[in-house]
Amino acid sequence: MPKFSPPDFSQPAFAGFPDAQFAPAPADGVLPDGFFSTTNLPTFVRVNGRWIAPKEPRMDAGLVLDREGAIWTREGRRLKKGDMVAVGDKEDGTQGIYVQTHMGAHTDVGDAFAFMSSEVSREKPIDYGQMARVLVDQKESGGYPIWVTGPALVHSRARSDMSWFIANGYVGALLAGNAVAVPDIEASIYGTTLGMSNTGEITQGGHGLHMRAINRVRAAGSIANAVSQGIITDGIMYSCVKHNVPFVLTGSIRDDGPLPGVITDMLVAQDAMRQHTMKATMAILVATALHAIATGNMLPAFVQNADGTMRELPTICVDSSEFVVSKLKDRGTHQAFGVVTNAQDFMHILRLYVERELESRAATSRANTATAAAR
Amino acid sequence: MPKFSPPDFSQPAFAGFPDAQFAPAPADGVLPDGFFSTTNLPTFVRVNGRWIAPKEPRMDAGLVLDREGAIWTREGRRLKKGDMVAVGDKEDGTQGIYVQTHMGAHTDVGDAFAFMSSEVSREKPIDYGQMARVLVDQKESGGYPIWVTGPALVHSRARSDMSWFIANGYVGALLAGNAVAVPDIEASIYGTTLGMSNTGEITQGGHGLHMRAINRVRAAGSIANAVSQGIITDGIMYSCVKHNVPFVLTGSIRDDGPLPGVITDMLVAQDAMRQHTMKATMAILVATALHAIATGNMLPAFVQNADGTMRELPTICVDSSEFVVSKLKDRGTHQAFGVVTNAQDFMHILRLYVERELESRAATSRANTATAAAR
Amino acid sequence: MPKFSPPDFSQPAFAGFPDAQFAPAPADGVLPDGFFSTTNLPTFVRVNGRWIAPKEPRMDAGLVLDREGAIWTREGRRLKKGDMVAVGDKEDGTQGIYVQTHMGAHTDVGDAFAFMSSEVSREKPIDYGQMARVLVDQKESGGYPIWVTGPALVHSRARSDMSWFIANGYVGALLAGNAVAVPDIEASIYGTTLGMSNTGEITQGGHGLHMRAINRVRAAGSIANAVSQGIITDGIMYSCVKHNVPFVLTGSIRDDGPLPGVITDMLVAQDAMRQHTMKATMAILVATALHAIATGNMLPAFVQNADGTMRELPTICVDSSEFVVSKLKDRGTHQAFGVVTNAQDFMHILRLYVERELESRAATSRANTATAAAR
Amino acid sequence: MPKFSPPDFSQPAFAGFPDAQFAPAPADGVLPDGFFSTTNLPTFVRVNGRWIAPKEPRMDAGLVLDREGAIWTREGRRLKKGDMVAVGDKEDGTQGIYVQTHMGAHTDVGDAFAFMSSEVSREKPIDYGQMARVLVDQKESGGYPIWVTGPALVHSRARSDMSWFIANGYVGALLAGNAVAVPDIEASIYGTTLGMSNTGEITQGGHGLHMRAINRVRAAGSIANAVSQGIITDGIMYSCVKHNVPFVLTGSIRDDGPLPGVITDMLVAQDAMRQHTMKATMAILVATALHAIATGNMLPAFVQNADGTMRELPTICVDSSEFVVSKLKDRGTHQAFGVVTNAQDFMHILRLYVERELESRAATSRANTATAAAR
Repeated sequence: MPKFSPPDFSQPAFAGFPDAQFAPAPADGVLPDGFFSTTNLPTFVRVNGRWIAPKEPRMDAGLVLDREGAIWTREGRRLKKGDMVAVGDKEDGTQGIYVQTHMGAHTDVGDAFAFMSSEVSREKPIDYGQMARVLVDQKESGGYPIWVTGPALVHSRARSDMSWFIANGYVGALLAGNAVAVPDIEASIYGTTLGMSNTGEITQGGHGLHMRAINRVRAAGSIANAVSQGIITDGIMYSCVKHNVPFVLTGSIRDDGPLPGVITDMLVAQDAMRQHTMKATMAILVATALHAIATGNMLPAFVQNADGTMRELPTICVDSSEFVVSKLKDRGTHQAFGVVTNAQDFMHILRLYVERELESRAATSRANTATAAAR
Repeated sequence: MPKFSPPDFSQPAFAGFPDAQFAPAPADGVLPDGFFSTTNLPTFVRVNGRWIAPKEPRMDAGLVLDREGAIWTREGRRLKKGDMVAVGDKEDGTQGIYVQTHMGAHTDVGDAFAFMSSEVSREKPIDYGQMARVLVDQKESGGYPIWVTGPALVHSRARSDMSWFIANGYVGALLAGNAVAVPDIEASIYGTTLGMSNTGEITQGGHGLHMRAINRVRAAGSIANAVSQGIITDGIMYSCVKHNVPFVLTGSIRDDGPLPGVITDMLVAQDAMRQHTMKATMAILVATALHAIATGNMLPAFVQNADGTMRELPTICVDSSEFVVSKLKDRGTHQAFGVVTNAQDFMHILRLYVERELESRAATSRANTATAAAR
Repeated sequence: MPKFSPPDFSQPAFAGFPDAQFAPAPADGVLPDGFFSTTNLPTFVRVNGRWIAPKEPRMDAGLVLDREGAIWTREGRRLKKGDMVAVGDKEDGTQGIYVQTHMGAHTDVGDAFAFMSSEVSREKPIDYGQMARVLVDQKESGGYPIWVTGPALVHSRARSDMSWFIANGYVGALLAGNAVAVPDIEASIYGTTLGMSNTGEITQGGHGLHMRAINRVRAAGSIANAVSQGIITDGIMYSCVKHNVPFVLTGSIRDDGPLPGVITDMLVAQDAMRQHTMKATMAILVATALHAIATGNMLPAFVQNADGTMRELPTICVDSSEFVVSKLKDRGTHQAFGVVTNAQDFMHILRLYVERELESRAATSRANTATAAAR
Repeated sequence: MPKFSPPDFSQPAFAGFPDAQFAPAPADGVLPDGFFSTTNLPTFVRVNGRWIAPKEPRMDAGLVLDREGAIWTREGRRLKKGDMVAVGDKEDGTQGIYVQTHMGAHTDVGDAFAFMSSEVSREKPIDYGQMARVLVDQKESGGYPIWVTGPALVHSRARSDMSWFIANGYVGALLAGNAVAVPDIEASIYGTTLGMSNTGEITQGGHGLHMRAINRVRAAGSIANAVSQGIITDGIMYSCVKHNVPFVLTGSIRDDGPLPGVITDMLVAQDAMRQHTMKATMAILVATALHAIATGNMLPAFVQNADGTMRELPTICVDSSEFVVSKLKDRGTHQAFGVVTNAQDFMHILRLYVERELESRAATSRANTATAAAR
């Protein structure tokens, strides 16, 4: 553990700083208004021109000056009425309190100590309103949002919400694998995914249903044929076919079948995917580590505007675990914004917010028209 | 929830069973050797030839026979020297104690080989419609659903949805900790939780805000005072106070503050929680391992209907990881139904489905009234 | 591993069962309607009154009767028009196909209420001693343990332990992807994986090193060439080449490069993997969802002993999260035993226990020799 | 999405930069030595004095100059022999290639683009050697390492390794909860934890064993009494008692019992814990979110050396999921170093490395003594 030294308070940088201010605790166990709330970092308080390190340091406490001039780090509940407590909210010395934020390798907290500074966490609020605005903007401005999805989206029955996005123009291209298309088609034909019903029950003889679904499409010759022959009547693949939304289905070593149209050679498949990532103006990656990282590898972190300026390429990565998002960033897709949730719920709420955004824009538009007409 | 009946002890299968044996507690808070350790399943004790169901059932407790011939489920620490405690280690009636292990809810397809047979997985669809129906039924039938929540619910800003459930009569009691109430109140006063804004940004000086929030409530003397003084103006605690929904805030070793009203002694807190678990007719556990397990420990797996039949106590456990649900089951709460998702999304969609269920029931009711009127 | 026997079809219970029905494949790569979809369990098909075990068993395939009366387990895509395929959806023999669902390994205590009954949990003890005994037995008895590994094994620097297992005869075949071989080779040439040093530090300019490693192997023409030219001097791929341990490197959509020798067409790669899964007598799957599920799909749940009896195929699945093991089981690999830990630690401790087991057997052997000599 | 502009290459800062160098591909699909490996960030290449943005940007590729003077981002495999490829490894323009690393809020990658830059990941190597050295240094220098442990450590049977650390002087104080001490004592008396054997099997009647263990200690009056009466004969609590290592057992709302000596009032318990955190010179937090965060709250991020300098307080946080470590940091314990693994494996390997470190130091010491004697 490398050593470091306390600040040299004789330096000119500290010259003009005042003594800290203190105020009495108004009651037992109650801190005065504006009390200084401690961190766990080395802290120094200026008293009569001298910088003193409080004893018994810890975070989330007050700083109490005793009669001997010592300063103690005390939990609020332990205060007695009248105890003199440091007040202030600056940690840079300008209020007589200085917090040393640079301690070396691991504990350089940057400019300031903060909670909740992790990049990705299930404890962070998800701003669906903002995502919905970006997605509606994409549609209105002729953007090319690419969607990349994994099997959990299908098993959890977000199929209908995904179909809605496809049907309504929010999907420039869909990049997925055989393991997404197979249960989507199984669900359309048999109502199950891997034999599991849409309420999560296992069905009798269900383990063969995905094989039967594959076989029917193979017999039909293609997914498009199976749609036109009425074998596939709803879902993600159906919607892509019906609405002419391009899709790339890439194979993987774990595939059953595969379905006709799945590109089984990875180099051919990469080239096919890249035709879409090159056009992408937004990327939404849901419940897939493999395809998300594949897409991230091919995707620039930025997109060029018509006027020659650039902007970050909005990249949303949704997964049940922080690890997948973190892994995507560890593979260089630093622009990814992580949403830690379930695919079913994400799709459902995003659609809801997009519908609300559309209503709100429609209302604004009607109001503007009415105003214009009234002139 | 399908009903089931207690065993028919007049059947020949129960003919030869003896009365249960009892032994005196050797000291206050100490069970006799060989004491019967309870489960959360329906249990019957034979006394003078009659099979009696112990009162106040829970797991991990003893069975105490009182002078009136009633049997009480009692934690060991609550025993008095000389209390008569059931002894035995068989649950099949052969020692006069019978545990009903088949409660009938979950059926078995019987296929040996199946996919998707895991108990808890993010890949399983969540049936919000079914949960909403159960919750609305609870309200209509005068049930007592207890909600147990963790901090992620607050950080992720499901506060407003939780407040809606409280305000609209879907919460019999709220069981939570200081770490839920503090950020809820910080959000009401400062708009942040642990200094993080409701769009996930870290605010300047934010690390002290939860301490300032605590301090203001401590100065006011109680959460209720802080509500009536206009310090707390929205959120979970506000709604509980305004709508007279009882809450138990239990302390933990990680607490800051704590807030006034938080029960810091765990034995007192357990007794306070148990007042609610004994009345519970449903349990919803969101984003908390600690409090979910605590509640599961105290909660019978069943609830008695007015007609003497029983049904499984609906228990929903929501967490971002399969592990927490699995851990809850590993601690004996086998009736828990796991939902693997984010607290924010769960609360938002559940509310949406409850609102839809209410609309649907209202429409049905109007239709019935119209039909009746038309006759 | 306890042995079990195939069913005794001379028993009266099997008396009335008919021969299985077969129907011709209607086109190349297409199964007939109503085809029987296989599981990974022991399966028997009645042909001319005799119960025959299909060759090359795996799940999700069809059963094809050849002209010599043998039955082959065949993926649908490999069928030729006119191939005779078993039809039926019953597994109980009533349609001439019988699946043996009780393989006897895991016993049931039968207590209705129990703690810690989950299938997979980080809270379960890992019995390294037992795994080491099985692995040493495999080597001594000429078994064919297949190892399937993911990138985390390499990034976490379990390379040297994996190399030890390869060099010492514990690996029948290695099944992995480009994303394992690339950082393994990068580590040999540059000391980094994706630019990260073996103490976890990020190196200057490190993001290009895996590309430089790939490029050097591409220039050499093959991994074997790069080994013989002294470019690759240690690690997993080096050890496979030096010790003539066969490996299959399969491509994926996320691959950089790929390295020469990586099979980029998934159907070719599946056929290559299956050559090894058909011979497997044990499977160890470490830190990979994709390849573990791929292998599980191809792997029978049982292995036949020389004496005609059978036993469960020991299948160990190691991952940091319960979810991956649970997902593998949800895809039908129910025989998998889950170990929830870090790949680095697993490999290190398993090696340690294998070394201890070897010492223990050597000591026993010496003692036996000494005893024999003393007689 | 805020806009940003490409760099203004007319600025003096870019004045002295040279044109980029190019070298021919030595063969089809092979890049020249020293090729520039792309990132996904905006990139500019100087050709004939002009800065050109390569077309079709992506990471992990080469930059190919065509005959018209355009530059294309090309995967190595797509090169033809003789293609002119940019060479260089600097991204700051000094080799004629400039990468724009500051794009605004989300995608400011700091000074350079890098992989594997996450703070905590199961994919990072664990440096047990370094941890062992620090721990042995602590013992030799009279440090006060505090250990904070959760139940998984006991269920996974790392009890014996933990006992070894206690017995051998590596534990200044143990901070844990009732849920650690109970299964530790159950394991000593009955061989099980929550009824699960040390090979992970569920035992008949096992669900009551932890209650029987608690009851025996309550009857004895204290843990120390139970040790001296021979009721508890091994394990963590036994070792603490035998070796006079102080421990604090704090209660929680989920506790059974509790055991005598568990502090049930959280404020009293916090004060007891803080007596140890104030003395701590190192902290090892294993498999507990609750107690790790509690300890982190009380723990300064630094420790003062005898000479007045300071150093970071080594804080190791071990958990199976990245989330717990990240949550600890989100609560302000930024100095925590995260180890993502299983408690059983961590304890076992750390002990192994400490034993090796001791041997190594003993050998060095013997060598030094021999050298001194030889003079």
